[in-house]
Amino acid sequence: MRPFELTLAEAADAIAKGELSPVELTGSLLERIDAVEERLGAYVAVTGEAARRSAALAEREIAAGRYRGPLHGIPFGLKDLIDVAGLPTTASSRVRADHVAQADSAVARRLSDAGAVLLGKTHTHEFAYGLTTPQTRNAWDQGRIAGGSSGGSAVAVAAGAATFALGTDTGGSIRVPAALNGVVGLKPTYGLISRHGVTSLSWSLDHVGPLTRTVRDAALVLAALAGPDSEDPAGRDAARPAHPLPRERDLTGLRIGVPANYYFDRVSPAVETAVRGAIAQMADLGADLVEVGIPMARYVQATQWGLMVPEATAYHEQALRSVPELYAPDVRVLLEAGELMSAGDYLRAQRARTLMRQAWGRLLEQVDVIAAPTVPMTAAEAGQDTVAWPEGVTESVSDAYVRLSAPANITGIPALTLPVGHDDAGLPIGMQLMGPPMGEALVLRAGHAYESVRSGRAEPAVVTP
Amino acid sequence: MRPFELTLAEAADAIAKGELSPVELTGSLLERIDAVEERLGAYVAVTGEAARRSAALAEREIAAGRYRGPLHGIPFGLKDLIDVAGLPTTASSRVRADHVAQADSAVARRLSDAGAVLLGKTHTHEFAYGLTTPQTRNAWDQGRIAGGSSGGSAVAVAAGAATFALGTDTGGSIRVPAALNGVVGLKPTYGLISRHGVTSLSWSLDHVGPLTRTVRDAALVLAALAGPDSEDPAGRDAARPAHPLPRERDLTGLRIGVPANYYFDRVSPAVETAVRGAIAQMADLGADLVEVGIPMARYVQATQWGLMVPEATAYHEQALRSVPELYAPDVRVLLEAGELMSAGDYLRAQRARTLMRQAWGRLLEQVDVIAAPTVPMTAAEAGQDTVAWPEGVTESVSDAYVRLSAPANITGIPALTLPVGHDDAGLPIGMQLMGPPMGEALVLRAGHAYESVRSGRAEPAVVTP
Repeated sequence: MRPFELTLAEAADAIAKGELSPVELTGSLLERIDAVEERLGAYVAVTGEAARRSAALAEREIAAGRYRGPLHGIPFGLKDLIDVAGLPTTASSRVRADHVAQADSAVARRLSDAGAVLLGKTHTHEFAYGLTTPQTRNAWDQGRIAGGSSGGSAVAVAAGAATFALGTDTGGSIRVPAALNGVVGLKPTYGLISRHGVTSLSWSLDHVGPLTRTVRDAALVLAALAGPDSEDPAGRDAARPAHPLPRERDLTGLRIGVPANYYFDRVSPAVETAVRGAIAQMADLGADLVEVGIPMARYVQATQWGLMVPEATAYHEQALRSVPELYAPDVRVLLEAGELMSAGDYLRAQRARTLMRQAWGRLLEQVDVIAAPTVPMTAAEAGQDTVAWPEGVTESVSDAYVRLSAPANITGIPALTLPVGHDDAGLPIGMQLMGPPMGEALVLRAGHAYESVRSGRAEPAVVTP
Repeated sequence: MRPFELTLAEAADAIAKGELSPVELTGSLLERIDAVEERLGAYVAVTGEAARRSAALAEREIAAGRYRGPLHGIPFGLKDLIDVAGLPTTASSRVRADHVAQADSAVARRLSDAGAVLLGKTHTHEFAYGLTTPQTRNAWDQGRIAGGSSGGSAVAVAAGAATFALGTDTGGSIRVPAALNGVVGLKPTYGLISRHGVTSLSWSLDHVGPLTRTVRDAALVLAALAGPDSEDPAGRDAARPAHPLPRERDLTGLRIGVPANYYFDRVSPAVETAVRGAIAQMADLGADLVEVGIPMARYVQATQWGLMVPEATAYHEQALRSVPELYAPDVRVLLEAGELMSAGDYLRAQRARTLMRQAWGRLLEQVDVIAAPTVPMTAAEAGQDTVAWPEGVTESVSDAYVRLSAPANITGIPALTLPVGHDDAGLPIGMQLMGPPMGEALVLRAGHAYESVRSGRAEPAVVTP
């Protein structure tokens, strides 16, 4: 197996045992990037020389007995909304042409402290305000969308062009591209990972989280990132939680909620079959399945957009007045629409969120985890604007991809997506596991157990031409 | 001394000693109401028979040895935004013509549990949305405004027509009428007293609190009302705080901040002289005076109105569409203006509040209490719309009365007003003491010490014709 194909846990294990050097691993990743990047467009910028220097430093530290832990010497990609001192943070936008970050974001600092090796900055849908990431192509079919907004991170991880990556998730922006590219994505509890130094889309819905090739890898990255940061106003005071994954695959006693409404409405048959199959496998592992009703489902879309649109516009207020022509048309129209929204509509959305949080809180006292599709369909074709559902219902591609992700943003609960199969075209399908606030251990445990018994292992999705 | 002239503490002491009966006290108050109400218009409704029954019950309980504490048998008035089961809550509005409360508000319940005797419901500026309370006349000069929106409560207490009363304060609505009628008013820390069952003006700025004739009395009422209530979403989890007032008048070691900007700008000479004189007296009692700068002062007005206007409109959304003609013109225009406000303006106000809270938090680490005028001028004449300041500045009467009160609403800090003198026309002047969140003990201690050394005692303001 070539080093770029290793999971984070496998690579960390090999490095810790002295069987793999960070320099060799980083070199393998950089070669892989060279081989696939032209077809995929996952990266805004690859920082190859700096990565080789970081890897060499990690190698010397480890050789000197100063091993920092499982991220030491592991190469990663960073969504280009996340500041690294001295590097541009382009947000994949012409508005940010001359922007260079003065300081590390909190997460870049923590990864640096953990000894991880930055490979480069990955593409985002411009300012995270979209679900496709048009600069990037799906790792499984380059005629398909990467998903977004963390499209570059998901594609890089899927293609073996990063051992892990970070993304951000405001309405599904980690989970959607993770699902569409067959990787794992974790949107943690609101406030658990600091957003200091991360470009905001909508501060009351924004989350930072990992994209990885396994659930175990997501737990390892989470452990390095989680914990209080006084610089993030939403930061939780809780001590940094530990999420050790149990070795056993037994799910006895875990109550898994299976939605009777909303999450399986308007979902492609392939997605429904794969997700229900995965739920059945978790039941085989001992979990109790409980049918649950999703509360306030018809308010999800209005609440998500009612919160996101005015907050996004507020963030972009100055640039929207001075250089509106530098935004892509799809993003500009959303930002300008936000200027027309009334305070009353925003207030209604805030009040709906309060009620929705309470209702989901009661739901998550009845079950430990809710299992559902991450997205209602696999990757759309590039340029596809709408999707047709039975009974003559047409939905925009963006609405379809946000629909099942948004509840976890509105409520702030943790949500993990992991691959559970493929459709007839060979495109990956994702299952979403949601838990109570600060219940990362529950969703990781359930996801890990499923992953452990699932046949086969994730292979890099792109075959070098 | 006639019973209606007693302070709460004096009456409680006499009741506890068996020297005064609740029936006698209540009878004295009801007679006083009969004598002055026609001139003052403090009450929406007087519940005389029920009050006499409550007083008789209290008398029997106390005689039987079941004394409940200092509020037992004490007559009080309730601002008519506060629900009492079976009574109308009119909000002094025609919109509420047919409204009868189904259940007690949390504060009505707590006062009932403490054995206090409800005299009736007092007038508010319609739905608390104004600073004058036009139905009610100032206790000191019936050609002057009562102030608002808790005008009825302030006038009743000042005139000896209630031993204490409750009001609500969203932009000064306890403190303004208290100052203009020469009584004490306490706006506690946001969330300390439950607002469950209290008609909302602006939920992120609304507070419930006492109006009394002394600081000691305010502490007694606060003790009965404060504490957690799961029904108020803003309710604090803290245990019910005790605020015993020290007997000594010594303020040694207390750091009193004296604003170098904002609070003494555009203030009448009589108000400035009286407040600075009171501050000097607190220094004589041992307090250290520290000059402080008020942060973000130029954002106060925009933040207060930016938060209050859309929240008020959201609360009235349905009635405003169905029966707009039932609102008074001044309130209707404010509510309708709220429909035009943009989400961006509301968001800017929310963000400004966050920064203002942080800045005041730092300020209140430097000093224990900030002393300042409550309002910049004594009671305006009825019908007066504007006030002229030097250098050609004209201000609306409402803006003038909100100006110095609003910072404590925006930041949620406790603010106590107490009488510190009179102007040449004999109208009372109020001083405001503000402390850190949950710092009620600090402002009560400072106010009580000042009050203890101040010459004379508060007399009922109205002489019966």
